[in-house]
Amino acid sequence: MAPVLILMGSQSDWPVMQEAAKMLKELQVPWRAQVVSAHRTPDLLASTMQQAEADGVPVVIAGAGGAAHLPGMLAAFTAIPVLGVPVPSKQLKGLDSLLSIVQMPKGVAVGTLAVGPAGAANAGLLAAQIVGVSDKQVRQRVNEFREAQRAKVLSGPDLELDE
Amino acid sequence: MAPVLILMGSQSDWPVMQEAAKMLKELQVPWRAQVVSAHRTPDLLASTMQQAEADGVPVVIAGAGGAAHLPGMLAAFTAIPVLGVPVPSKQLKGLDSLLSIVQMPKGVAVGTLAVGPAGAANAGLLAAQIVGVSDKQVRQRVNEFREAQRAKVLSGPDLELDE
Amino acid sequence: MAPVLILMGSQSDWPVMQEAAKMLKELQVPWRAQVVSAHRTPDLLASTMQQAEADGVPVVIAGAGGAAHLPGMLAAFTAIPVLGVPVPSKQLKGLDSLLSIVQMPKGVAVGTLAVGPAGAANAGLLAAQIVGVSDKQVRQRVNEFREAQRAKVLSGPDLELDE
Amino acid sequence: MAPVLILMGSQSDWPVMQEAAKMLKELQVPWRAQVVSAHRTPDLLASTMQQAEADGVPVVIAGAGGAAHLPGMLAAFTAIPVLGVPVPSKQLKGLDSLLSIVQMPKGVAVGTLAVGPAGAANAGLLAAQIVGVSDKQVRQRVNEFREAQRAKVLSGPDLELDE
Amino acid sequence: MAPVLILMGSQSDWPVMQEAAKMLKELQVPWRAQVVSAHRTPDLLASTMQQAEADGVPVVIAGAGGAAHLPGMLAAFTAIPVLGVPVPSKQLKGLDSLLSIVQMPKGVAVGTLAVGPAGAANAGLLAAQIVGVSDKQVRQRVNEFREAQRAKVLSGPDLELDE
Amino acid sequence: MAPVLILMGSQSDWPVMQEAAKMLKELQVPWRAQVVSAHRTPDLLASTMQQAEADGVPVVIAGAGGAAHLPGMLAAFTAIPVLGVPVPSKQLKGLDSLLSIVQMPKGVAVGTLAVGPAGAANAGLLAAQIVGVSDKQVRQRVNEFREAQRAKVLSGPDLELDE
Amino acid sequence: MAPVLILMGSQSDWPVMQEAAKMLKELQVPWRAQVVSAHRTPDLLASTMQQAEADGVPVVIAGAGGAAHLPGMLAAFTAIPVLGVPVPSKQLKGLDSLLSIVQMPKGVAVGTLAVGPAGAANAGLLAAQIVGVSDKQVRQRVNEFREAQRAKVLSGPDLELDE
Amino acid sequence: MAPVLILMGSQSDWPVMQEAAKMLKELQVPWRAQVVSAHRTPDLLASTMQQAEADGVPVVIAGAGGAAHLPGMLAAFTAIPVLGVPVPSKQLKGLDSLLSIVQMPKGVAVGTLAVGPAGAANAGLLAAQIVGVSDKQVRQRVNEFREAQRAKVLSGPDLELDE
Repeated sequence: MAPVLILMGSQSDWPVMQEAAKMLKELQVPWRAQVVSAHRTPDLLASTMQQAEADGVPVVIAGAGGAAHLPGMLAAFTAIPVLGVPVPSKQLKGLDSLLSIVQMPKGVAVGTLAVGPAGAANAGLLAAQIVGVSDKQVRQRVNEFREAQRAKVLSGPDLELDE
Repeated sequence: MAPVLILMGSQSDWPVMQEAAKMLKELQVPWRAQVVSAHRTPDLLASTMQQAEADGVPVVIAGAGGAAHLPGMLAAFTAIPVLGVPVPSKQLKGLDSLLSIVQMPKGVAVGTLAVGPAGAANAGLLAAQIVGVSDKQVRQRVNEFREAQRAKVLSGPDLELDE
Repeated sequence: MAPVLILMGSQSDWPVMQEAAKMLKELQVPWRAQVVSAHRTPDLLASTMQQAEADGVPVVIAGAGGAAHLPGMLAAFTAIPVLGVPVPSKQLKGLDSLLSIVQMPKGVAVGTLAVGPAGAANAGLLAAQIVGVSDKQVRQRVNEFREAQRAKVLSGPDLELDE
Repeated sequence: MAPVLILMGSQSDWPVMQEAAKMLKELQVPWRAQVVSAHRTPDLLASTMQQAEADGVPVVIAGAGGAAHLPGMLAAFTAIPVLGVPVPSKQLKGLDSLLSIVQMPKGVAVGTLAVGPAGAANAGLLAAQIVGVSDKQVRQRVNEFREAQRAKVLSGPDLELDE
Repeated sequence: MAPVLILMGSQSDWPVMQEAAKMLKELQVPWRAQVVSAHRTPDLLASTMQQAEADGVPVVIAGAGGAAHLPGMLAAFTAIPVLGVPVPSKQLKGLDSLLSIVQMPKGVAVGTLAVGPAGAANAGLLAAQIVGVSDKQVRQRVNEFREAQRAKVLSGPDLELDE
Repeated sequence: MAPVLILMGSQSDWPVMQEAAKMLKELQVPWRAQVVSAHRTPDLLASTMQQAEADGVPVVIAGAGGAAHLPGMLAAFTAIPVLGVPVPSKQLKGLDSLLSIVQMPKGVAVGTLAVGPAGAANAGLLAAQIVGVSDKQVRQRVNEFREAQRAKVLSGPDLELDE
Repeated sequence: MAPVLILMGSQSDWPVMQEAAKMLKELQVPWRAQVVSAHRTPDLLASTMQQAEADGVPVVIAGAGGAAHLPGMLAAFTAIPVLGVPVPSKQLKGLDSLLSIVQMPKGVAVGTLAVGPAGAANAGLLAAQIVGVSDKQVRQRVNEFREAQRAKVLSGPDLELDE
Repeated sequence: MAPVLILMGSQSDWPVMQEAAKMLKELQVPWRAQVVSAHRTPDLLASTMQQAEADGVPVVIAGAGGAAHLPGMLAAFTAIPVLGVPVPSKQLKGLDSLLSIVQMPKGVAVGTLAVGPAGAANAGLLAAQIVGVSDKQVRQRVNEFREAQRAKVLSGPDLELDE
C-alpha cells in the first residue's frame, strides 16, 4: 500500500500536523510527511503531485495557516483526494486558515477538517476511511478504533463536584 | 458500482444539493438522493447508515443548514467517508452551517466543502475522486473534467471595458 | 422529584458543566450528570432519552463544544425541555459551539445559554425555574436566590482607585 | 391554564414573533401577545412581570432585535422562565440580537432560540414543552406534533434534477 | 459642579472602569462610582437615574460585559447623556459587549466607546468634553491634556532595532 | 444657539445622515450639514474644526462607512464632543464602519452610535441631550420626545395573527 | 512603458476588476487584463509571471473570491509587486476573500485593497502610484486625479432634507 | 536612494513594526522610522508627507492598531505609495485594525499586509519590491532573499513523531 502523503507549509506546522500521522499509525496505514510551501516553493507543487500520482498515493493531507493556499493548490494539480487542515493562526485563531481552505471554487475540491490538532487527527482518520473504501482490513481497523473510543466514553470515571 | 448517497435535512436543501448529483452524473458515477433529518427523523440515522454499508455505498454526501447536525451524526454511525455541505442559512449566511459541520471533535470526521452550490458540486467531485482511488475509469473521467474546465478558462472571450 | 439530567459530550466538559450542578444543588433541586457523546456513542441518545422520560426527568441540560451536536440531538429524541450550554472551544472561543447549539431548525428546540461557566450555571437556574412552574417550593428558593444576589450587589465594598 | 405571554419590543417584531403564537395555537396552548419596549417603556417591565406572576403565566417569550435588552430585563424581574428570540437586524443580520440575548451573566437566565422566525416558532414549541412538564395533555400534543413532522419528512416527494 | 456618575454591573468591572475615574480626576472633573446591576438590581435603575437628575449629574458613564444591558437601560430612564463602555468578556472578547451596547434602537441613545480600559478612559474624556460644552475651565483642561499627550508623542525616544 | 454640525465623508451618506438632522429638527435644535472627506479633503479637517470652535458649535456628528476615519480625525482636531455614525458598507454591512469608528485609542474619544439610520437618528438625539446638559428647554423637549414615543408604544394596535 | 497586468480567476470577476482598468485608463497608464485561474490553470502561474518579468510589467493586480489563492500564488512566482483585490463572495460577502488574500505568511507579500469595486479601482490607483515612484508624469497625473476628486467634494450640491 | 519611511501611531507599535525595518535592512534598502499619531499629532500628517515628498521617499509604511487611521490618513496627503500594517489589538485581535486599514473608499488607496509581525516584515519586502521596479540591484536582492527562503524550506530537518 502506498503511503498517505502529509504535507505542510512550514516546519512549524508539524506539532499540529503530526496528529494526522499518529492517527494513521494507530490505524496501521502507512504515511509520509514533508514540508512543501505553496508560497516559498511553488515550483514543487506540480512535481510533488506528479510523484504522488506515480507512487500511487491514495490521499493527500495538507495543513496550512493564515492565507492557507497549500491544500487548494495541491488539489489544483491532482485528482487524488486532498484533505485540508486549518492550522491555527496567532491573531485570527484559524478563522482565516479555515476560510482560505474550505471556500474553494466549483471545480477544485478540498475536504476540510476542524481547526487545529483535532482536525489533523480527523484528517488521518478520514484518509483511513477513504483507503478503507477498497481495503477491508483498514475499514475493519477504523471500526475497531470507533468501538474503542465508544468504550472509553462508557468506562469514564464518575462525575463529582469539586468542593 | 453502488451509488454515492446524497442526504439532506430538508426538501428545501435540494436546490443546493442537486449540484452534487449533477456533478456525479457528469462524471458518470451513480448516485441516490434522500431526505433524512437529523432532528425530525433521528431514528433513521443508524438504519440509513447500516443500509448504506450493506449496499456498499462508497461515500456519503450530507447537506444541512443552521445548526447543521446531519453530516456529523451520519459520520457517527458509519466508517464510510462522509462529506458535508454547509447549506446557506437565511440570516447568518451559512457561517453557522459551516462551523456546525466542520468543527467536529477528534474521532469522528466530516470532510467539509464550501458553503452553498459550489460546495455541493465539489462534494460530488470529491466523492468521485474518492471512488477514483480504486476505480481507474472514474479517475480518468475526473481528469477529463479537470482538463475540460482548464480548456474553458483558456478559451474565454476577451475582456473589454463596459463603456 | 426526579433529578434534572446533566449530559455532556466529554469528561473534559465537566469543569464547565458542574456549574449547572452546583446551581441546582444550591437551589436544592436533585440532579444527575453523565457523559454521553453524540458522536462517539450515538446509539445511546435514544435510549438515554427514553430512560429519562420513564424516570420523569423534568429538564435535560446538555453541554458540548465545537460542532456541538449533543443538545440538538437529545432534543430530537424527546419532548422533555432541553437546555444547551456552549462549552468554549480552544480556537474559536465557543462561537462555533454557540451557533451549533442555538441555530436549530423549526420543529426541534434547544433553549440556549451563554458560552462557558456562566451559561452552565444559568442552565441550572433556568432548569430550576422550569421545575418551579409547577413546584412552589422550588420557585420560592429561586426567588430567595435572586434576593440574595441582589443583596450581595448592594452590600459590595466601596470602589476606590488603585494608586 | 394561564396563557403563555409573548412580548416584543416593537410592533415591527410581530411578523417574526407571531410564529411563536402560531405554534402555541397549533399545540392548543393559550397565549397572549403584547408590545413592551425595554427602552421606550422601561417602567412597564416590573409591572408586566408582576402581573404575569399574579396571572400564573407559566412561560414568557420575548423577542427583540439589535441591542436586544427585552428578554434579559424581563428575566431580571421574575422567576418565570423567559425564552428569548433574536429578531433579525437589518445590517448585522441578528448576530447582534443573538449575542445581546444569549450572553447573560451568571444569575439571570434567558433560554435563547435561533435568529428569526424559526427561533420564534421554536420558542412556542419549547414553551409548550415546559408547560408539558406538568401537563400530560400538552406533552401528548407536543409528541403528536413531533410525530407529524416526522411523517412529513418521510412522505416527501422524490428528489429529481432540474433539467 | 455635580459629579459625573460612573456605574457598572459588577464589582469585577472596576479594574476596567476606574480608567474613566482616573481620566476625570486628571481633568479635575468630580466623579462618583457605584455598582448597579441591570439584571440583579433592576429595581434600582429608575431610582438611580431619578436621583442623578435631582443631583444635576451632567453625564452618566456605564460599563458592562457580555449581554451588556446596563448602559441602554439607564438611557431608557433619563435624558442625561449616557456613555457606554464595553467591558471585555472572557470568551467572546467583548464583541458581545460592544454590540449589546452600541446597537440601540431609534429613540434611546448610548454614546459607545472602545472595548476595554482605553474605552473607559475615553468615556471619562468624552464626559469632560460634554461638561466642557458649557464650562470653559474644563474645556481648557481638556485642551491642555490634548496638548500634553501631543508633546509626549513628539518627545518619545528614538526607535532602535532589537538585536 | 450655535448649530450642531453634521459632517459626512460623501454625498452618498446623506440618506443615512439626514436622520440626525430630522431628529434635531424635531427637537428644535439648530443644525448644519456639510460634506468633508477625511481622505479626499484632509486639509479641511483642521480648519473645519477651528471654524466650529469659533462658531461655538456644541457637538459634532460625523458619519462615514468602510474604513471610516472621519469621526476619529475630527475628534483629533477639537475638544468639542464628537459623535460617530457607522454608515453601512455594501459588503461588510457596516461592521467595518463600526469598528473603524468605535475602537479609538486612549486619548481621543468618539461617542459611537448604532450602524445605519437608527444610529444617525440617535446621534441627533444624543447631541440634543448634550446640549440639554446646560439648556433646560432642550432637555425639556427631549423629555417630551421620550414621553411621546412611550405613548406611541402604549397606543399601538392589537397584535393579530396573519391567517 | 510596459502595461500593468490585471489578472483574475474567472471571467465572472471582470465586472469588479475592470474598475482597476478604468482607473489606469483614466491615469493614462497602460494595462492588460487576462483570466488565469490558480485552481483551474495552475500550470500557467509560473509562465505568466515569467512572461510578465520578461515584458517588464511593473505591477501585477490580481482579483479573486472565496478561497482567493490567485494573488498569493502569483506573488510566490515573482518579485514584481502584486496587489490583491478581494472579489465579493455570494455567501460570506468577501470576508473569506479578504482573509485569504491578506493573511500571507512572512516572505511572500500581497498589498491588499478593499473588498469589491472600490478596492479594484484603488488597486489601479496604487499601481499608478507605484509606477509613479520612478515616472514623474504618472505621479503628476495621480496628483491631478487627487486634486480633481478634492474639487468634486467641494463643489457638491447642498444637503437638503427629503420631505 | 532616499529611505523608506516607517511610521507608527505609538511607541508601543515598534516591536511589531521593526520587522519591516529588519526586512529592509536585510535587503539593504535604507529606512527611517518615526512615531506620528493620526489622533494625537494630526497636524503633523500633512507636513510629514510633504517632507517625505521633498526627500524623495519612495514608499511609506504605516502601522496602527484598533481604529487604525494612520495609513489611510497618510495616503490622503500624498501620492507616494502607502503600505498599511494592522497592529494586533488586545481584545479584537487586530480584526478591527485590519478592517480600519483595508476598507478604504475609492480614490485613496492603502496596500494592506497581514495582521502582526509577519505583515510588518512583508510590508518591508513589498516596499523593496516597489523600489525594485526601477532599481535592478534591489530587485536582485529580493530575488536572492526569495531563493534563500526557498532553500531553507528544502533543507529542513526530517519530520519525526514526538513520542
